[in-house]
This record gives sequence, structure tokens and C-alpha cells, in this order.
Amino acid sequence: MERYDIAIIGTGPAGISAAITAKLRNKSIILFGSAELSGKVSKAHSVQNYPGLPDISGEDFAAAFKKHLDSMGIAVTEDKINAVYAMGDYYALQGAENAMYEATAVIIASGVVPGKPFPGEEELLGRGVSYCATCDAALYRGKQAVVLGFSPKEEQEAVFLAEMAEKVYYIPVYKASEPKPEELAGNIEIVSAKPRSIERAEGKTKLVCEEMELVTDGVFILRESVAPGQLVPGLETDGAHIAVARDMSTNLPGCFACGDITGLPYQYVKSAGEGNVAAFSAVSYVDRMRRQA
Amino acid sequence: MERYDIAIIGTGPAGISAAITAKLRNKSIILFGSAELSGKVSKAHSVQNYPGLPDISGEDFAAAFKKHLDSMGIAVTEDKINAVYAMGDYYALQGAENAMYEATAVIIASGVVPGKPFPGEEELLGRGVSYCATCDAALYRGKQAVVLGFSPKEEQEAVFLAEMAEKVYYIPVYKASEPKPEELAGNIEIVSAKPRSIERAEGKTKLVCEEMELVTDGVFILRESVAPGQLVPGLETDGAHIAVARDMSTNLPGCFACGDITGLPYQYVKSAGEGNVAAFSAVSYVDRMRRQA
Repeated sequence: MERYDIAIIGTGPAGISAAITAKLRNKSIILFGSAELSGKVSKAHSVQNYPGLPDISGEDFAAAFKKHLDSMGIAVTEDKINAVYAMGDYYALQGAENAMYEATAVIIASGVVPGKPFPGEEELLGRGVSYCATCDAALYRGKQAVVLGFSPKEEQEAVFLAEMAEKVYYIPVYKASEPKPEELAGNIEIVSAKPRSIERAEGKTKLVCEEMELVTDGVFILRESVAPGQLVPGLETDGAHIAVARDMSTNLPGCFACGDITGLPYQYVKSAGEGNVAAFSAVSYVDRMRRQA
Repeated sequence: MERYDIAIIGTGPAGISAAITAKLRNKSIILFGSAELSGKVSKAHSVQNYPGLPDISGEDFAAAFKKHLDSMGIAVTEDKINAVYAMGDYYALQGAENAMYEATAVIIASGVVPGKPFPGEEELLGRGVSYCATCDAALYRGKQAVVLGFSPKEEQEAVFLAEMAEKVYYIPVYKASEPKPEELAGNIEIVSAKPRSIERAEGKTKLVCEEMELVTDGVFILRESVAPGQLVPGLETDGAHIAVARDMSTNLPGCFACGDITGLPYQYVKSAGEGNVAAFSAVSYVDRMRRQA
């Protein structure tokens, strides 16, 4: 398997900045994210305080980033990284459909995860709670499950799960008008409910909602990004953020973080600046590891 | 005297970024530096890793920054700040010709000072060593002085000093071809020498050079920027850099720093990102002070 020098997770301003600088410093990189780059960037109305690009629309911003990546021959690998494991002298990254990647250093630039985990969520991860329908659907053959979808694109995950599972309850955690029931036909039931917490009960998983309780074999929580402590086991967090030093290092050697995921202010140029610093730190780390090898 | 919310020292990427964000947040600001913006920026051959502006020349970069400042109506005050004093609930800033300014918060973005102070320099500051010809020339009426000029523009300082002093030795600390002797006529003697250290000797100031010793009444050391510990008395430094936290705060409440002066890497986008963070922190500080008032 190809071992990259640096894997970068996220294609917002932080990840893009890190990729550009790491590439300039002649490191082999793999950049994970959406080829459309950050959804948050292109949806921004206008950005006024990114020095050098006055009053630029989100769309133009995303286009400028894309052009910069293209001009340097940096491709985006469209895979969602669900877990990053520290393996000693390298990191193993698990993508969707269990694709695996390896890199000496990792830069986490996946943005801030809105909201806190539900009570019980972290404790039951892997025991009735899953973040990846693609990974775990096979375990639900003939069983029942709840899917909490945080964006309309998770509807496809529910559909995929329903191909295996006996019954899927789909709770859209976004504007109620968006899910299209006709597309979620068959054994999928759309439930309007406000989830509150998750419990185990007699071998089943109970999702407690404001309006009801749903007892099934498991709950899939499909957010746009994975909470940092769940993404990288052992990573020191500070609330919803990753704890970093001024050089963007985390408590795990070779693992760096930058952008919104490191804390406020949530600002493009702050993210881009941190991506640059994280890249320099990761480059030094890779060089140091190479000298020791 | 007008009390600004935030004074920003420096017109490189850090200071410009701080000014843009502070202005967007409706604070009254004063931005000190060169209207030509950072000399280092415009002299750069090309910058490849400022996300969104691929492969841009230093000149185009400076022009883009200038346009951004202009579009927001941010003027540059062309005064060199020689000292910043913490006055309790505000800062007093001393410019050339003893002009004074006041601001509730200060953001230091004056860039990194190349090289270390000469041995003896800091100890003798104010006792035979000066950083400001404009400020101290009057003390040299009929006396002799050495001027160490770190850039050609300091030649004018030597000329001004020579209007008062009996004799001025001018040592250019830059490419030897640049000073134009014909412009430094009269009682100015251009000396080619490598300064090493400064001592007091029998009421005089002795500049020890590699090639000779110059004993006069005082030595003017005219660098492009003032070392941070000398600029702001009481400021905690870390070698040539200002010690900052992740929010760009220093050990002095209301005093923030960003850009090269906070440490490596010396990178435009890192500086711009830190300027943004420093502005947010300064805005919060100003708001807090206002609530307490």
C-alpha cells in the first residue's frame, strides 16, 4: 500500500492551505474531502476579511481555491474518513467501504462538528451506535435500525441500509421539508422526532426522543463530519475542538489539526493560516521520522 | 486626544488582516506603517502558497492588499512607533517627533527584527544608545555620534542629526553600494565597518567594530523595526519573538501580537490568519473594557 507522507482530511480553507504548502515542500500528500471543496465556503454570501480578496462571494472563493489546487496539480480524493488510527510510525485511515490509507503524518482539517454528541452516544459507539451505514449495514440483515440523518445526502445511506435491514426508521435532523418521502419508499419509515439520548435496553438500543422512544437493534448517527475524539482514538479534545499547541500539534505525535476544528474564531483566513503552520510542522515531523528510519 | 479602540502597528499581512477585521467589527482603528505597505511583501519574487491567490508576485500582492484597505476606507498613518506604554486602561504610543497616540488595545504586527541586539546595546539604551535620531538629536548639539543605519532611508536621519551634532560617523549596515556619499556631505563621515559591541568608557560610548573602535558621545541604532521588548516595556518575549497564546494575547492585558513577530514559520498566510485572530481578541477586550467603564 502506498504510504503518503501527509494525509490531510478536509477541503475547507485549512485543508487546502495545508495541502498547498505540503506539496510546495515536496511531500507526497493525499487530500480527502469533497471535490466541490467545502460546502460551507461556497454557500457563504460574501467574505470581506480575507486579505487580498476583498468582498468575495462564497462561490468565487471556492473557485479561487479550486484554481489554486489545480494550478499545483493537487487532486481531491473523494472519500469520507471515518477513523484514523495511530500505528506507531504511521497512521492508518479508514474510509467509507472500508478503504484503507496510510500516511506518516495526518492533518485534521475537517471543520467543526455542530452540536454535542447525544448522551449515551459515545459510550455505545460500536455497541448499537454506528457512524457509517456503508461499513456496518451487513450487521443489520433482517434487523431494525434508526438512522439520524444530519443532511439530505444521508437519505441515500438510509436507502442502502434498508436494502439489508428489515426496517429502517429515518429521522431527518434538518429542515422538515427537505426529505422526499417518495424516494425513501419501502421499508423506510420517516419519523419526525427530536432525539435526546441513547440507551441500551435488554440487548436492544433505545433512542429516546422528545415525542417517543424507538427501540431497535441499532442507531446510525450520520453527521457531515465525525467528532474529533471519535475520528482519532486517543486524541485530546477541548469540548468540540481538538487541543492544539501554537505549532498545530496535538497530543499524538505526527497528528496535527487546523481550522475551525481547533476553535474560535471560525474565519477563513485564520483557518488558512493554521493550515500553513500545520503543514510546516507535519513536514518537519516527516523529515525527522525519515532521518530516524 | 482621540482615544482609538485599537492601534495596529505594522502594514504587513498580519497588520493589514487585523485592521480589516477590526474595522469590519466597527471598531475605531489607527494603522501605523508605510503607505507602501510592507517592504518585504512588495520585494518578494513570488508567493505560491497564499490560498486563493496562486503564484502571485510580491508587487501584485502588495497591490491586492492596498486595494483591500482602500475598499474599506482604511488609511495608513505613516509614523514610526518607537515605544508603547501600558497606562492601565489604555496604551500610549510614541511616534517619531514625539507624536503621541492613545488606544484601548494594541496589536503589534511589526515583523521580525533581523539579528540580535549588539552586546551592550540593551544595557546602554538611554545612556549612550538611542533608537531615534528625531527624538534625541537635540541632546547632541556640538557633540559626536555614530549612526548605524540598517536601510538607506536612515541616511536622512544621519543628515538631520548632523544639523545639530558636530560630527556624525555613518555606518551603513546594508549593501555598501547603496549609500550615496554626495548626499551625506559636510560633517558626516561614512565608515565601512562591522559593528560588534557597545561599551561605556570614561563618559563616552565606545562602538567596537571588527576593524576599529569609535569613541563618541553616543550611538544611534536605526533598524527598520524596534525589538519587541524595547518597543513595549514589560512585554514577555521569547528570544526575538513576542510570547503569545493561541488567541494572540501577550502577558499584558489589551496588548496582542501577530505575524512574524510571534515566531516561525514566516509566512504570509500564517501572518494574515494571526492578524484575524488578534483582531477578534482585541475587539472582545475593547468590548469588555467598555462594559466595565
